[in-house]
Amino acid sequence: MVVGMTTMVILVSCPDQPGIVARITGRLYAAGANILTLEQHVEEGQLFFMRIVADVSRIADTAEMREGLQGLAAELAADLLVKDADERQRLAILVSRDGACLEDLLSKQRAGEINCEIPLVIGNTEALRGIAEISGIPFYCVPSEPGVGGPHEHRLLELMAAARVDAIVLARYMKVLSREFVAEYENRMINIHHGFLPAFKGARPYHEAWERGVKVIGATAHFVTAELDDGPIIAQGVTAVTHQSSVETMIKTGREVERRVLGEAVRAYLEHRIVAHKRRTIVFN
Amino acid sequence: MVVGMTTMVILVSCPDQPGIVARITGRLYAAGANILTLEQHVEEGQLFFMRIVADVSRIADTAEMREGLQGLAAELAADLLVKDADERQRLAILVSRDGACLEDLLSKQRAGEINCEIPLVIGNTEALRGIAEISGIPFYCVPSEPGVGGPHEHRLLELMAAARVDAIVLARYMKVLSREFVAEYENRMINIHHGFLPAFKGARPYHEAWERGVKVIGATAHFVTAELDDGPIIAQGVTAVTHQSSVETMIKTGREVERRVLGEAVRAYLEHRIVAHKRRTIVFN
Amino acid sequence: MVVGMTTMVILVSCPDQPGIVARITGRLYAAGANILTLEQHVEEGQLFFMRIVADVSRIADTAEMREGLQGLAAELAADLLVKDADERQRLAILVSRDGACLEDLLSKQRAGEINCEIPLVIGNTEALRGIAEISGIPFYCVPSEPGVGGPHEHRLLELMAAARVDAIVLARYMKVLSREFVAEYENRMINIHHGFLPAFKGARPYHEAWERGVKVIGATAHFVTAELDDGPIIAQGVTAVTHQSSVETMIKTGREVERRVLGEAVRAYLEHRIVAHKRRTIVFN
Amino acid sequence: MVVGMTTMVILVSCPDQPGIVARITGRLYAAGANILTLEQHVEEGQLFFMRIVADVSRIADTAEMREGLQGLAAELAADLLVKDADERQRLAILVSRDGACLEDLLSKQRAGEINCEIPLVIGNTEALRGIAEISGIPFYCVPSEPGVGGPHEHRLLELMAAARVDAIVLARYMKVLSREFVAEYENRMINIHHGFLPAFKGARPYHEAWERGVKVIGATAHFVTAELDDGPIIAQGVTAVTHQSSVETMIKTGREVERRVLGEAVRAYLEHRIVAHKRRTIVFN
Repeated sequence: MVVGMTTMVILVSCPDQPGIVARITGRLYAAGANILTLEQHVEEGQLFFMRIVADVSRIADTAEMREGLQGLAAELAADLLVKDADERQRLAILVSRDGACLEDLLSKQRAGEINCEIPLVIGNTEALRGIAEISGIPFYCVPSEPGVGGPHEHRLLELMAAARVDAIVLARYMKVLSREFVAEYENRMINIHHGFLPAFKGARPYHEAWERGVKVIGATAHFVTAELDDGPIIAQGVTAVTHQSSVETMIKTGREVERRVLGEAVRAYLEHRIVAHKRRTIVFN
Repeated sequence: MVVGMTTMVILVSCPDQPGIVARITGRLYAAGANILTLEQHVEEGQLFFMRIVADVSRIADTAEMREGLQGLAAELAADLLVKDADERQRLAILVSRDGACLEDLLSKQRAGEINCEIPLVIGNTEALRGIAEISGIPFYCVPSEPGVGGPHEHRLLELMAAARVDAIVLARYMKVLSREFVAEYENRMINIHHGFLPAFKGARPYHEAWERGVKVIGATAHFVTAELDDGPIIAQGVTAVTHQSSVETMIKTGREVERRVLGEAVRAYLEHRIVAHKRRTIVFN
Repeated sequence: MVVGMTTMVILVSCPDQPGIVARITGRLYAAGANILTLEQHVEEGQLFFMRIVADVSRIADTAEMREGLQGLAAELAADLLVKDADERQRLAILVSRDGACLEDLLSKQRAGEINCEIPLVIGNTEALRGIAEISGIPFYCVPSEPGVGGPHEHRLLELMAAARVDAIVLARYMKVLSREFVAEYENRMINIHHGFLPAFKGARPYHEAWERGVKVIGATAHFVTAELDDGPIIAQGVTAVTHQSSVETMIKTGREVERRVLGEAVRAYLEHRIVAHKRRTIVFN
Repeated sequence: MVVGMTTMVILVSCPDQPGIVARITGRLYAAGANILTLEQHVEEGQLFFMRIVADVSRIADTAEMREGLQGLAAELAADLLVKDADERQRLAILVSRDGACLEDLLSKQRAGEINCEIPLVIGNTEALRGIAEISGIPFYCVPSEPGVGGPHEHRLLELMAAARVDAIVLARYMKVLSREFVAEYENRMINIHHGFLPAFKGARPYHEAWERGVKVIGATAHFVTAELDDGPIIAQGVTAVTHQSSVETMIKTGREVERRVLGEAVRAYLEHRIVAHKRRTIVFN
């Protein structure tokens, strides 16, 4: 991106049909936008997905262009998202006791590797208050009750609403959220699972990986759905292990993968590069 | 690709300017073509590259569409390539004594992993005659003379011409070719180098890697240019080594990487997915 | 290994106890053997495993040394294996229709990357007869009956016995073998599974991987046990995929991983580097 | 490691000769030590390296055992290092403006992934004072003078001495140190280079990697020697890039690799797992 350039991200999903690219890019060209990147994907020969980044610096008022695109979307029966590429979204980070992913996200945000606001961190224990507050980010402790759902989820929703949160990152938050909570943040809540899904769901993936004697371990970032560790996968990473790797070693080396994979998924999300469809995601480059 | 579908590959390179995507896709839409995949890339904000795969099954005669695209290319000052996606190109494979890459290419061709004809294999020794002939492919032994260039290159060119060869693969061919020979097959001759370029050029990369004590070794597939091991890189792969890896071990495990990387580069070439520009390549997905 | 050197591989498994290394290496030193490599591993603080490669060139008759080691093994309650490192084992390869792994194993054997005899290839279809015979290896077609077990397994066992087979490689052999058959070749039969176990067991792992939307696919080489795709894992490899990867693409790029992983497992087996224990393997370097 | 267990690390380097393992492990056994892990390596058939971790909990006074080992080392003409495995070494971290590696090391130290004291951070600019001080670590700004060597190096040496520093980590410290300074910390100063050495030495490796069009970028952790970016390599990591990766993208994704590789090298150093020999390192598992 060139300094001073105003860029827009346009995401389109619709039934596949001839002429989609021509019609949308034609409209942009007519409006004075210049395409910087364009990627499209056709899923199973039926569904069309496209992401365009366009330079709109030469357009005095983009309202008309947006309207034109909305009209076109209606004709194509398309879902359309048009976003200012520089707009910073607001992320809440939920944690429990393991602070490695939290620290990494905060470090990447400071370094500009992920472009967002982080208005609050919420823990279900006090363990990571220090890490959040040292970075000047408000920390709220909302202990979980036993079972799924309950008053603590209301408190979470209140805090999110008050902080005008766009999306949630579960950075090793060890508590299952209710179907209702999940529905509120459908395709807007990212979890890092410390296992190579669909293998090793649940709370002790490294222990199970050791028992099973695998030679590669992994981590998975995915959108949260009502089914545990079953949502659309955004990013996965792996690292080799050997018979010498104890569970403790796996936890340490696995953390490196978790951080990397979660950072990658969050960056993709913030750049509007992810579209979830059924149990799959399209992740544009 | 659906059986019975006729598809075309369209490759465009031109100075970047507004409206390229709109104009080309508009033309295809008007002609009745349906875009299956489209990828574009802008290099340094100045040069535009695009690859389109289009379903042209519904177009009775594509000649008119091709003409229209040629006219558009002229307006855009573009290089244009339009190819039938199913057309099988003809590859010559040049070898010396190490047969692993040759065997792998022949195996992949048989399995349909690379879609081409291999009308001949040429060795500068007799060592690999058996491997070629066992697969029913004519083998020619053209011993190299000392120095660069000379009569053996004329013989090579004659054999290529007689076999109507589209492109050449140097599958561990250990002889430097002359500037003139290289010019004949500019961006149509792929070499596999058993080192991670630009490190470890020359004939003994694994020995040098051992001496230098690297912890990762690699292989590089690249277009051949007049400068040794310096042409545009198409694909690279790596594998970890340790202090325990002897040169012999590196040669064995390196071979695995060489095969994989060369196969990947050849497949990309055959699918018209590579564009070379200066010392870089665009390799569309 | 230096030419003309006689080397032995010694594999020891026993309950952990002080002094094992000292006692065994002391015995070897006293006998005139020189240790080239030594690796040991203690599993869960209880079981001790060690592999030694020793130069025994200076020992006129190794019988006495072997006896001494046997005595020591009895004292340590150890399983002991002592093998001439140069002895070539005899492998049978079982196949169905996909020839990529077979071709790769034959190519690696010719290149000396795996050091063994391959006295026969058995298919449950005729599909790969040509690949075996072109390499001068007898091919037997033993069609499978429906269900598990039955006359075809008897025929397989006869063929193995006649060919004095040490171990079996299932190179994409698509037929479940009976508990009895498996027991005959416990820890001597290696299967390549085209999925990242324990995820995606069964016959269609790439289809399931596509449905689940994973971003990494893998292959697993493992010893065969009575439970399908559940034996001790020897080697695993992975490769990244994206939303653009169709099932067909996964099959193609997965094959590359299958070949590499199977080759690695077979090489480790032939070099006496694998010890299976419960559902895990120790794979010495 | 079991809680309450006292463990020692023993590192041996000597000319290869029969009986080394037997004699050293025999001595340990006699003294009442129990070997937990043992790894050895013979370099070019001439030099023998071994690392042993031994449980010495049952030994009342290890002084005698140490003396015995010293005597044995003299007989074998060996370099010997005997260290309490739990002893925390003291690391100084030197930085300039890029804080990602520093933040990662501090985070890993807090999480117990690397076991050491960090008594001070020194910058040649003020840029990263905040990151150090937020973690409660003293920060000193020692601006570099032009050229190599000079008063600032004296100041650095004073600070190291006052803080009783065992080793130095250059975490993206962008200033060449003099031959004299380097000699003071031979094999005790680790640098992270943001390129895949020996390719891309110097200050702008990502720019050069982009120009050269490589498809894989890497990072290298190495001991610092008088020659720039030429010391023995400890660890290397890589990540794939494409034609779409701008220099800025490479810098971002490269950082992830730098962090991982530097952390890996520092952990190996603190665990006494590295031996440098000529331009190579042995890195025990």
